[in-house]
Amino acid sequence: MTDTPRFRPSGIVTFTTDFGQRDPFVGVMKGRVLGRHASATLVDLMHEVSPQDVDEGGFWLARSYRDFPPGTVHVAVVDPGVGTSRPVTVVEAHGHVLLAPDNGLLVELVDQATQPLLRHLDPGALAALGIGPLSATFHGRDLFAPLAGELAAGRVTPGRLGPVIEALAVRSSPRRRPVVGETGVEGSVVTIDRFGNLITDIEGEWVARFASRQVRVGTQVVTIGRTYADCQGGDYLALVNAFGVLEIARANGNAAASLGLGRGTTVVLEARQSP
Amino acid sequence: MTDTPRFRPSGIVTFTTDFGQRDPFVGVMKGRVLGRHASATLVDLMHEVSPQDVDEGGFWLARSYRDFPPGTVHVAVVDPGVGTSRPVTVVEAHGHVLLAPDNGLLVELVDQATQPLLRHLDPGALAALGIGPLSATFHGRDLFAPLAGELAAGRVTPGRLGPVIEALAVRSSPRRRPVVGETGVEGSVVTIDRFGNLITDIEGEWVARFASRQVRVGTQVVTIGRTYADCQGGDYLALVNAFGVLEIARANGNAAASLGLGRGTTVVLEARQSP
Amino acid sequence: MTDTPRFRPSGIVTFTTDFGQRDPFVGVMKGRVLGRHASATLVDLMHEVSPQDVDEGGFWLARSYRDFPPGTVHVAVVDPGVGTSRPVTVVEAHGHVLLAPDNGLLVELVDQATQPLLRHLDPGALAALGIGPLSATFHGRDLFAPLAGELAAGRVTPGRLGPVIEALAVRSSPRRRPVVGETGVEGSVVTIDRFGNLITDIEGEWVARFASRQVRVGTQVVTIGRTYADCQGGDYLALVNAFGVLEIARANGNAAASLGLGRGTTVVLEARQSP
Repeated sequence: MTDTPRFRPSGIVTFTTDFGQRDPFVGVMKGRVLGRHASATLVDLMHEVSPQDVDEGGFWLARSYRDFPPGTVHVAVVDPGVGTSRPVTVVEAHGHVLLAPDNGLLVELVDQATQPLLRHLDPGALAALGIGPLSATFHGRDLFAPLAGELAAGRVTPGRLGPVIEALAVRSSPRRRPVVGETGVEGSVVTIDRFGNLITDIEGEWVARFASRQVRVGTQVVTIGRTYADCQGGDYLALVNAFGVLEIARANGNAAASLGLGRGTTVVLEARQSP
Repeated sequence: MTDTPRFRPSGIVTFTTDFGQRDPFVGVMKGRVLGRHASATLVDLMHEVSPQDVDEGGFWLARSYRDFPPGTVHVAVVDPGVGTSRPVTVVEAHGHVLLAPDNGLLVELVDQATQPLLRHLDPGALAALGIGPLSATFHGRDLFAPLAGELAAGRVTPGRLGPVIEALAVRSSPRRRPVVGETGVEGSVVTIDRFGNLITDIEGEWVARFASRQVRVGTQVVTIGRTYADCQGGDYLALVNAFGVLEIARANGNAAASLGLGRGTTVVLEARQSP
Repeated sequence: MTDTPRFRPSGIVTFTTDFGQRDPFVGVMKGRVLGRHASATLVDLMHEVSPQDVDEGGFWLARSYRDFPPGTVHVAVVDPGVGTSRPVTVVEAHGHVLLAPDNGLLVELVDQATQPLLRHLDPGALAALGIGPLSATFHGRDLFAPLAGELAAGRVTPGRLGPVIEALAVRSSPRRRPVVGETGVEGSVVTIDRFGNLITDIEGEWVARFASRQVRVGTQVVTIGRTYADCQGGDYLALVNAFGVLEIARANGNAAASLGLGRGTTVVLEARQSP
């Protein structure tokens, strides 16, 4: 039916959350994974996602999960609806398994994956694994972590966790998606990294397609280069970064701070003008 | 003599410190654990505890160590007295071992544990393990980490580390403990998580005992609900969180910031009025 | 030829970067290490190094890598020149391997090591390991991580990675090095830890050599003590810390904040006056 590689557990579990390291929440999740699979390899993918913001986490997750070996279980907990009846999604994609609330977190990943298999977690499957009871506020600990442990240990397969569904319940993430027109693309700043680089949702391939040489962000027109070293002291530079999207950087500086721009800012990729 | 499960090392070591990730202190401790037990599983429980504040770390540790499998060694280093003659505590509780300076960090954990075994580390035991010399400023590296490694490797048992003592040297943590009266409970805000939730020391069972429907914090009277979703945009809500204590949250917001309240704030749980 | 212990892989890989945990960059590097060596032990040494600042990372790395067992591979990615032709350094020292851009990051470590073996990475060696292609902006993921994985797995030895060189291309780190005179030492504040301690490049042995009892920093003259407990509430204190260098602390306070001093501040160690 499908050519997507089957999930064969590698024992690796990654964590993407809006928790911080000042709170014990991530540590506790790891403890619960280890309670189910003592030899799991635990890796922090990213934390301190903007609180309850499914956009940032979802964007990065879609662009980084395949840097782990197939067989990895990725747990994503940005979960403002915890304790309500929002379903839990189990996604198989390219040999990985992803677990997250069905709240938009996995929308981009699913959109980009080849033949992903989507499931909603069946509560009966939890009971069969001895997972529960669930608190009203921390399913990361009570549900996602032990479930990840069971999957990583190979004691349950994704296929046992619930029936395949056609589409996620939440089919779009809150943010505006880029608009590709005839004269260019209108996208936006999705996230800002610690260097102050403005990371957009404008795909690198569009830069090539439109033969673009510059991008507009706020009142600034920024030239597209190749490496950070292409911009001289104080200058701004746009480049296609290692995750395949356009970002705006400043030589030896913090572009976001000095431009005074933040997430959601419109970024326009302009098609090259004919001479 | 005691029914507490014996410690059988799982190879897991957790870390609770007031260090940050910008400094190499936690990394160095992990290096020293690995020097004693190369196959240890290392987990950050929490870092960036308020500097030299034994309350926050102690509160969370007491409420989270049992989320790890029995056999785990938990190292807690919030150690303003490092280099003085303050004793080091070795606690066995529910099959876990906890190592910390005897400065109040383990008070809550010991209070809540069933038949914990308390010991003061005997310097001779360190010598026997080849641990030392100790610097005057970083026992996390020089003492706690190698000792945790030896315990995790199963090369020494807690019983070899010193004679059992009746009580910790520091028997109370600095903060005010909650007062349970006839008409309710007066507690306080112990810590604030990254979402701005005010986390109190008011136990969930007291909410039930007093059939309370609301709580007072500062000038605010807040209704007690069940999940974050129970409060509407902008509203405040109190709930018994996944760690069994009352917390005050704000819908889609940061309760601590918008109330302008911090750690130590008095929180009053009011008994339900008879109709 | 050399007495330095040979590198025999322990399977441990450490990470020193200027990335933060809010971005997935460190996680992605770990994923790529695991793709090459699934059973690697991954340890964060330090992150959030001041962006693109090779001084802080290099200072700490030199003083902490030997706290890990020999056989550890240390990856240091503070890499403002990524995408340019800056060479990559492979250093063997005391049985460890260190991988970093040749940009000053390893200068202090190499200066302090006994008979280190320095190499520049041969691009042909990468090709032989199937590493590549390289993006223009993230060699941490594309080069350093997979190379660390291959070394940790023991599938390649440092000797296969390139010819030995006499010296690093960048032979000095940007910061001023301490000047040792007849009447004392003029050094500077290299980094500030999370407690606000001002950490200098003044070696503890110089304090002994000059029989110094005090140090000048800004307009402040600070007495040299032994432990943090030697300074009373509000007082400043200097001490030789656990990493062998002088630091300036404040009792129950943040020395950097209350002195209003930062990195680069001159610190003068004064020789003891004859009576």
